[in-house]
Amino acid sequence: MVHSEQEQQVERWGMLELACPGPAAGNPFADCELFADFRHGGRTVRVRGFYDGGGVYKLRFMPDAVGEWSFVTRSSSPELDGIAGSFRCTQPSPGNRGPVRVRDEYRFAYEDGTPYVPVGTTCYAWTHQSEALQRQTLDTLRSAPFNKIRMCLFPKKYSFNSVEPDLFPFSGNREAGFDWSRFNPAYFSRLEERLRELQELGIEADLILFHPYDKGHWGFDAMDSEADDRYVRYVVSRLAAFRNVWWSLANEYDFMKAKTMSDWDRLFRLVQQEDPYGHLRSIHNGTGMYDPESVVMYDHAKPWVTHCSIQHWDVNLTPVWHRLYRKPIVIDECCYEGNVPQRWGNITAEEMTRRFWDAAARGGYAGHGETYLHPEDEIWWAKGGRLYGDSPARIAFLRRVLEAAPEGCRPIPAFRDVPTIGVPGEYYLLYFGIHRPAYRMIELPPDVSFQAEILDTWEMTATPLEGRLTGSCRIELPGKPYLALRIYRSEA
Amino acid sequence: MVHSEQEQQVERWGMLELACPGPAAGNPFADCELFADFRHGGRTVRVRGFYDGGGVYKLRFMPDAVGEWSFVTRSSSPELDGIAGSFRCTQPSPGNRGPVRVRDEYRFAYEDGTPYVPVGTTCYAWTHQSEALQRQTLDTLRSAPFNKIRMCLFPKKYSFNSVEPDLFPFSGNREAGFDWSRFNPAYFSRLEERLRELQELGIEADLILFHPYDKGHWGFDAMDSEADDRYVRYVVSRLAAFRNVWWSLANEYDFMKAKTMSDWDRLFRLVQQEDPYGHLRSIHNGTGMYDPESVVMYDHAKPWVTHCSIQHWDVNLTPVWHRLYRKPIVIDECCYEGNVPQRWGNITAEEMTRRFWDAAARGGYAGHGETYLHPEDEIWWAKGGRLYGDSPARIAFLRRVLEAAPEGCRPIPAFRDVPTIGVPGEYYLLYFGIHRPAYRMIELPPDVSFQAEILDTWEMTATPLEGRLTGSCRIELPGKPYLALRIYRSEA
Repeated sequence: MVHSEQEQQVERWGMLELACPGPAAGNPFADCELFADFRHGGRTVRVRGFYDGGGVYKLRFMPDAVGEWSFVTRSSSPELDGIAGSFRCTQPSPGNRGPVRVRDEYRFAYEDGTPYVPVGTTCYAWTHQSEALQRQTLDTLRSAPFNKIRMCLFPKKYSFNSVEPDLFPFSGNREAGFDWSRFNPAYFSRLEERLRELQELGIEADLILFHPYDKGHWGFDAMDSEADDRYVRYVVSRLAAFRNVWWSLANEYDFMKAKTMSDWDRLFRLVQQEDPYGHLRSIHNGTGMYDPESVVMYDHAKPWVTHCSIQHWDVNLTPVWHRLYRKPIVIDECCYEGNVPQRWGNITAEEMTRRFWDAAARGGYAGHGETYLHPEDEIWWAKGGRLYGDSPARIAFLRRVLEAAPEGCRPIPAFRDVPTIGVPGEYYLLYFGIHRPAYRMIELPPDVSFQAEILDTWEMTATPLEGRLTGSCRIELPGKPYLALRIYRSEA
Repeated sequence: MVHSEQEQQVERWGMLELACPGPAAGNPFADCELFADFRHGGRTVRVRGFYDGGGVYKLRFMPDAVGEWSFVTRSSSPELDGIAGSFRCTQPSPGNRGPVRVRDEYRFAYEDGTPYVPVGTTCYAWTHQSEALQRQTLDTLRSAPFNKIRMCLFPKKYSFNSVEPDLFPFSGNREAGFDWSRFNPAYFSRLEERLRELQELGIEADLILFHPYDKGHWGFDAMDSEADDRYVRYVVSRLAAFRNVWWSLANEYDFMKAKTMSDWDRLFRLVQQEDPYGHLRSIHNGTGMYDPESVVMYDHAKPWVTHCSIQHWDVNLTPVWHRLYRKPIVIDECCYEGNVPQRWGNITAEEMTRRFWDAAARGGYAGHGETYLHPEDEIWWAKGGRLYGDSPARIAFLRRVLEAAPEGCRPIPAFRDVPTIGVPGEYYLLYFGIHRPAYRMIELPPDVSFQAEILDTWEMTATPLEGRLTGSCRIELPGKPYLALRIYRSEA
């Protein structure tokens, strides 16, 4: 193993990478198993290594505790077996707050305890585009409000997305066929560069392991279960040590006719077993649960599902999903801002913004996507590139509001027909959506003094109400849609 | 019976009324049963009579077939028993098309076969207001687009509706108490005048028999089952001969805690049994079927339910209800245009109009209501009066479009993600709603020539597309919400 005499240092939730030459004959992806046991105090974490091509094997590890760690390798190949070493895990550098975890039924938090409010976007195939376009996507993300991105590992063949990519996860190509038992390290190496760049931008990579946008073009949606499992093990062994990785088992899993519910259960459990760090795991539906043509929804209550990743146009159903699944609700697709012919991709910026707010005010989280027609089909939702829409600025405004809210915000049913999150007695965020009452009675605790602001979520303004509020109050409203009311306990 | 020597004439679906003095002692409402058997050819229709006060008993009959009818009475009181007579039923006068019937799973029609497209509004308590306000309501309805009105028999105590009415269905008053075994003919007489006036305006009266807006104020929501049944029998005996009557068993039945599902079943069957004409029967929910707090929905598939009368904000669920119940879907409440504080009563005219169109384009029918704050609380939805909103003109536009469509329009799933009704090969009506595609591919039958118009459902304009369409066509669209596309077979 490449391991210098001087003790190596890795920050907490950073990545230790060990590389070692090993057998290159036969099929090293399939023939040689490599693990390492990392020890910290009395605890051992087993990590799978992987073959990276060119006769080199690698092991990656994300330490989660400060202090001394030691390791020793285990391998079916004698030259990779029994290699031992140690390193020191240091405090995380600023901005490194660890992987995102589920905090409770409603919320996420980084492992260091900092609340994480998911504000996601979707660029399914951005890493399969030209280098220049990938750069542009990263530049756009730099000033966009998003802290999560949904992206596919397999390339995508779909409307507005027909360019053949240059690199594939597997060895081979479409003409000659792919060898599902041999991976393509160059593909993964570029993807990992992207993951690091996203990490620097503070963006979680919601990695979609399977998807149906293939239909015989490459065959990645219809591999046999042995190939699926081998793929999952290889992906997890390479990527799990990135702290900003989430596992999305599939996009629109119910459109993948070659797989059954028990396949998804098996793949979920495999990811859970292979990932030493317990990154977030979800699966995303295609049909809606109330569509007449809908299949049965995947049961997000199953123990290996960490949170719900929903596709539905009606984010107001968030409380129904909470009741069913008791897990954080992310409505990753609720239609996209744009003007493509397809129904899911031609809502207005106003409507996209409304859906974000209506989800948030019910304790859920909507996801963004943008689908404006483009002369070169460079549409954000598929390829990344530039954003043209008007919703991202409003989503940034929402993110600021949510991040400024006190910890522990959750739905407050007492406000009945105005969806409200808050901390009783401290803070209330009410959202009126398309509704535009001329006034509203609000029941606040008596003997507590509150201040309030009317937020115009479209104009992105916060207008303080004069005076203090307490007990039962009548609040006059401007009588237009897309308003919110932010009420917080007065200091004095 | 008051019945002249000269043979009486009644038009088809008109009303024959027979009056006869009878016993006035004791409680004539409860003590004396009166029926008549009306005969036409080999057919007999049994009709219940009712006590109208002042020692007078009445029998009302709506003949449904032209020609000679005879009748004979049956009564527990000898002076009312065995009275016989006859009358001639003539052709209906213009505008009289008979009662509305369910035609098939999607549609209604008058009994003469003319299609009936329900375009309803809601004025729950309009007949409990001052004479002047009732007149104003009728004047408003004269130029409004509505051909159905939801209205309560019992008075209503609710927000914006606290004036004590002058007349009640029962004998008595709030202070002294009501005698549930004695009815108030003056109340019914005025109501019947209103029914006749609605009939002249071509408006169906969707009569709500029970509702929860009482809560101990008068007690009408918590009578015992004997009183409920007696009330239903009396109401049906008085009102069933009005051809424009529909029976809505209840509004927000699930908010009436004193009644169970089996009570509703019993009352439905009682109405069905008592009404010789089979007027339409429905029941209207309070909670939505997907609300977390929802009770189980009344099963509209039960045989005594003629059509669904739904409350839900999401009219796009119409296909779900069709699939569940296989009956025409009327979403009588899907929020109202207005600005009251309550969520159900403060949507914009644009949104009210959209809901009408989104329901219609899925083969359903939305209902209107208006809830603008008013200095004297004269709010249309409760009291009638004047309309102030901008949706009625748009609803009139929709009504003209639907009434101009060929018969047999029903949902056409082939257009996938644009809700479409039509007659394949002849006519298609596509509605884009909040969606605003820049263009749309439409698959029309080859070898058939079509013309098309873009309907701006808000601006109420129809802009013809140049040229003819056939086969697979690309249609450029203005890229704004609330557009429809009307495509029809070319004449030449």
